[in-house]
Amino acid sequence: MSLPRIAIDAMGGDEGVRTMIDGAAMARRRHDRFQFLLVGDETRIKAALADHPGMSGASEILHCEDVVEGDEKPSRAIRRAKTTSMGLAVDAVKRGEAGAAVSAGNTGALMAMSKLALRTMPGVDRPALAALLPTLGENDVIMLDLGANRDCDARNLVQFAIMGAAYSRIVTGLERPRTRLLNIGTEENKGTEDIQNAAETLRAATGLSMEFEGYVEADKINRGDCDVVVHDGFSGNIALKAIEGTARFVTDLLRRAFTSSVRSKVGFLVSRPATELLKHHLDPNNHNGAVFLGLNGVVVKSHGSADARGVANAVEVAARLLEDDITNRIARDLREVNTEGFNAK
Amino acid sequence: MSLPRIAIDAMGGDEGVRTMIDGAAMARRRHDRFQFLLVGDETRIKAALADHPGMSGASEILHCEDVVEGDEKPSRAIRRAKTTSMGLAVDAVKRGEAGAAVSAGNTGALMAMSKLALRTMPGVDRPALAALLPTLGENDVIMLDLGANRDCDARNLVQFAIMGAAYSRIVTGLERPRTRLLNIGTEENKGTEDIQNAAETLRAATGLSMEFEGYVEADKINRGDCDVVVHDGFSGNIALKAIEGTARFVTDLLRRAFTSSVRSKVGFLVSRPATELLKHHLDPNNHNGAVFLGLNGVVVKSHGSADARGVANAVEVAARLLEDDITNRIARDLREVNTEGFNAK
Repeated sequence: MSLPRIAIDAMGGDEGVRTMIDGAAMARRRHDRFQFLLVGDETRIKAALADHPGMSGASEILHCEDVVEGDEKPSRAIRRAKTTSMGLAVDAVKRGEAGAAVSAGNTGALMAMSKLALRTMPGVDRPALAALLPTLGENDVIMLDLGANRDCDARNLVQFAIMGAAYSRIVTGLERPRTRLLNIGTEENKGTEDIQNAAETLRAATGLSMEFEGYVEADKINRGDCDVVVHDGFSGNIALKAIEGTARFVTDLLRRAFTSSVRSKVGFLVSRPATELLKHHLDPNNHNGAVFLGLNGVVVKSHGSADARGVANAVEVAARLLEDDITNRIARDLREVNTEGFNAK
Repeated sequence: MSLPRIAIDAMGGDEGVRTMIDGAAMARRRHDRFQFLLVGDETRIKAALADHPGMSGASEILHCEDVVEGDEKPSRAIRRAKTTSMGLAVDAVKRGEAGAAVSAGNTGALMAMSKLALRTMPGVDRPALAALLPTLGENDVIMLDLGANRDCDARNLVQFAIMGAAYSRIVTGLERPRTRLLNIGTEENKGTEDIQNAAETLRAATGLSMEFEGYVEADKINRGDCDVVVHDGFSGNIALKAIEGTARFVTDLLRRAFTSSVRSKVGFLVSRPATELLKHHLDPNNHNGAVFLGLNGVVVKSHGSADARGVANAVEVAARLLEDDITNRIARDLREVNTEGFNAK
């Protein structure tokens, strides 16, 4: 079976070309049928490829010297879409030369370029940014939207729920992922009117490929009893960053506690396998790769400061979504849902 | 110096009368000039007081058998204000028989009763719920609003900033607490119009008793470089709960990691002082006591499941705010601020 290849924006991100190429090579060792279109400065890409002989037969280079800056305004970046590594990687998806694009560059610019080039798929009003987070349960939880849309109406939230559940089915293998709307309480009268209306629509809907289970509060996101958490981009940003910051805060406290006495240091050394497990579980590189769902094509955002392992994870997310054809899954799910006032305009 | 006494709703909360009385007694050992008005079932209060001989001379009992239920609607609870332990504790503040009230009961009911009985102070449109959170720095950070107001306009946010800074000055001793608005980015154009307008007002204001330092993202709340974080009640609920849930998540992971092998268990025992330090730092009981700021009187909400140590902490928060006369401080700060379009209507 011939799979569409993955376009890599080799120039975006803080870690440079080598990290992106090392990451792609690492991912290919696990998904060895994948091909790559490496977009960026040819000389630097070739230098990085020298370390990965297996990659040369699997990659094509698209030379380009321009890069979208980390602080560049999306409105400016989209005018440079045809000359920047990010713009050309997305464009390759549009032209069918790649099935997915991966970039570690400026999120706002990547979102703007992707929307403009790929357009939202039929039945979807707005794309959403989705990411996986670790839980105490067996599976990761999917959170969306994480910043593509500051304000969302009920219709957007319902579509996000359907898109998130489709993504979860691919990642978890569950037939009906448990899906909830993020809210400030679990009673029906809690939260904004948009959240309440979205809940009402999902409760009344038939043909959903999920178990809709109402609201979830932010302290329950990572308990493992919920597979998809749906919110607008503002609340999602607050929740995700509070989670990331607190995980770092606790591990910083722990490091401080463990270095505060000789006895603790000895304890730390003896129990290193345990703390390594913790570190592994919380390392953002192991959960790297946020996906823009709802576009005609797959675009994955790798964290700007991700290392090669993080990039490999983002590339694998793209590979997984391509193998399981996320775009068609979402299209089919949208067609099968029956809800008043929701169906595609 | 004679200090106003503290009214304790002895019946609210999940832990019962004894926990409330034990907590009050514990707090009194540290703030021994304080007197208490204990509101609730006289027989049960007397039984609990038997363990604390030092308390009897310092307390008066206000008998009452009715209690606001944990799931009671605020609209129903306020109709029972004159017959419930919560309502009578708040009423004691209104009638000047106590300077502050502490309750572990239903938050929504406590808020509704407090607003109705005490009214907002001059210059304040709406009260806010404020709480202290641990940081990596020397001082705790104050977050407000944590749920008193789902939607807030710019004027509310500016007032919350001033109230939060007054609270921070009491707790930290800083002359000009570093104050920021919670947002989804630090650039001026980020977030809602209300947040942007509040920032503009605070930037242009003179006479502020704080350093206003712009926006903070949710992953930086607990870094220790910010003393007051201001937000509406919806975002605040999401942020606070995400922080609480993640702290619990990481410590659960840690416990799991430490019990996963004999070697880890040995390491855990050797390094127990370190993990105890972590536990102490993260224990919600050590940060218990959320305050309704902006009312004509001090009302402190103790967590429903707090133990006696947690209740003691909430009572000490009330004692501290009374000793330092928070209400007059806020009134003075509001008078001294000069901002266009903001000054008290």
